[in-house]
Amino acid sequence: MIPLMRSVIAGTGSHIPSHAIPNDHFLHHEFRGPDRKAIDKPNAEILQQFEAITTIRERRWAEKDQVTSDLGFLAAQAALESSGTDPESLDYIIFGHNFGDVRARSHRSDLVPALAARVKAKLKIGNPKTVAVDVIFGCPGWLQGVIMADAMIRAGDIRRAMVIGADTLSRISDPHDRDSLIYADGAGATILEARDTSDGILAHAVRSDTIEHSGMLFMGPSYNEEVFLEALFLKMEGRKLYKYALNNVAGAIKETLDRAGLSIGDVKKVLIHQANGKMDEAILDALYKLYGIDKAPHDEVMPMTISWLGNSSVATVPTLLDLIVKGNLPPHEIRGGDVVVFASVGAGMHINAVVYRAP
Amino acid sequence: MIPLMRSVIAGTGSHIPSHAIPNDHFLHHEFRGPDRKAIDKPNAEILQQFEAITTIRERRWAEKDQVTSDLGFLAAQAALESSGTDPESLDYIIFGHNFGDVRARSHRSDLVPALAARVKAKLKIGNPKTVAVDVIFGCPGWLQGVIMADAMIRAGDIRRAMVIGADTLSRISDPHDRDSLIYADGAGATILEARDTSDGILAHAVRSDTIEHSGMLFMGPSYNEEVFLEALFLKMEGRKLYKYALNNVAGAIKETLDRAGLSIGDVKKVLIHQANGKMDEAILDALYKLYGIDKAPHDEVMPMTISWLGNSSVATVPTLLDLIVKGNLPPHEIRGGDVVVFASVGAGMHINAVVYRAP
Repeated sequence: MIPLMRSVIAGTGSHIPSHAIPNDHFLHHEFRGPDRKAIDKPNAEILQQFEAITTIRERRWAEKDQVTSDLGFLAAQAALESSGTDPESLDYIIFGHNFGDVRARSHRSDLVPALAARVKAKLKIGNPKTVAVDVIFGCPGWLQGVIMADAMIRAGDIRRAMVIGADTLSRISDPHDRDSLIYADGAGATILEARDTSDGILAHAVRSDTIEHSGMLFMGPSYNEEVFLEALFLKMEGRKLYKYALNNVAGAIKETLDRAGLSIGDVKKVLIHQANGKMDEAILDALYKLYGIDKAPHDEVMPMTISWLGNSSVATVPTLLDLIVKGNLPPHEIRGGDVVVFASVGAGMHINAVVYRAP
Repeated sequence: MIPLMRSVIAGTGSHIPSHAIPNDHFLHHEFRGPDRKAIDKPNAEILQQFEAITTIRERRWAEKDQVTSDLGFLAAQAALESSGTDPESLDYIIFGHNFGDVRARSHRSDLVPALAARVKAKLKIGNPKTVAVDVIFGCPGWLQGVIMADAMIRAGDIRRAMVIGADTLSRISDPHDRDSLIYADGAGATILEARDTSDGILAHAVRSDTIEHSGMLFMGPSYNEEVFLEALFLKMEGRKLYKYALNNVAGAIKETLDRAGLSIGDVKKVLIHQANGKMDEAILDALYKLYGIDKAPHDEVMPMTISWLGNSSVATVPTLLDLIVKGNLPPHEIRGGDVVVFASVGAGMHINAVVYRAP
């Protein structure tokens, strides 16, 4: 009989930058609109509305001398050390990010060499068989790396992979754009291993919507063009994004649960991309509605970090996972047999979901 | 009996920019060294030596209003149309590149949305199940995309994937650096399909060397810093690179052939990354030496395009393949049963190889 090889999580790590930036840091910024005109509202009111919608009170920024690959390295090191995994035993290091290394004030993406190779070098892994590759897939890039590593594990090509998600959104934030207030820096890393088990990753689903959706998150000039003519900042069409996520994420999660032969009642935790607090709650409500349940048990099922960590793109979900696994987000925990849903949505636009049963 | 699903090549396409730049275009450039000092040699001599080492007489550059995703789209369109593949039937579009979209004179990488999503939008593919993802792996990025698509096909996750390789190295070329003379623009695309066959992709091997090697290809300032203080250009340590490739590529190819149970005598064609003409010949010689053969049949086995297309990074191998398949590189051809080796080496440093038997 052919053994049923599945991917199980064998280690987690994260790096939360120590530099916490509260909302009132932005009290004296000059906010403008997409029309380049100053927003006719006091900053205190802008920030209050922002917090009400997103639930973000503060976000984390990397140190000035750090770049994304540095954060990714720290998360990777934490995952390897806390799990006791021999770094030389890794078959793959997959790094999900969206901007490469952007040095402070440079507003320039640097991808050569790619970030996984930089992390491998920093980890001093000498094994030439540890393949280091980057996967670019918007905010769902870490989960997409997990999905692709899982395929290589099930195909029998590899036995152990580390998937890193890290970004420094502070480096591509337009100080004149309110939307940039959600952006944060961070890194998470997860080690997957092949195991002959009926647990582990049970199913996944992915969708890419591009015809009308590719322009919802894009790089553009500052809303104050006189100041930052040359630079490129991450811009979003917030309302369209919100609507897209609300209409499609719940369906992708249900599709994944269907593939795994499970229902919402089987799900212990939903670890969802920390994009926007109220949006995530609306997505969970939509998911439960697909099963005829009117009110989703937000606090019990959906651990959140966005209020104090902001939206760190690819880093949010692996960081959430690490905090829970290490007991740093009580009362949330993951025990043997628990079914956990991972889900993300972001630039592309892309949505992906994974159903996992802890061994 | 479980069917043996393997990946076969079901379509190829490429886009060769029409703008041919001969070496004498650079006769009046001011070349400097890594020490920022002018090179004490007439340009005619510099260019003559350059051609002798690399065999490059001219390279192709994209039109000023094109970016990498445009070239990738044209190659993808060519692959779909010439093979009669329904674009909506693609399960994955994987785009290998190294700089994102860099607009003319901007010297800035733009990855949001990622390039596969941009191509999917341009192809007007409405199917949300066509997943569009970028893979970053230096020059071997296209072949790495093939290797990862092949794993998803063998795992049973997908049935059809298009893997694109495109870059516009003209946009990150330092006009004051001789090494930049090798850089070119281009795009290739390949469609892989699941088939119940003993042909197709038979084996692959990958290696990543990072501790001493990650700095061999990197982004840095122009050798004329007064002019281009802010910009980032692709820089290489040419001698170290050459030595690394010569010492390791042949071994990776032999390892792949060993895994496929084949020997060098079984190989009809070696499609190798067009990095440097003389280097590629030395690599083929080294490969044949591993089998005790003193002189490799260069012209017969190793089709070359570098003399007129330059080094277009990820685009070289899929472009070579398309030219041969379409009968545009006579007398080279690939017939049913022919064993073809694909191999690449580049920034990371990474090396990969695939052994393929045409169905």
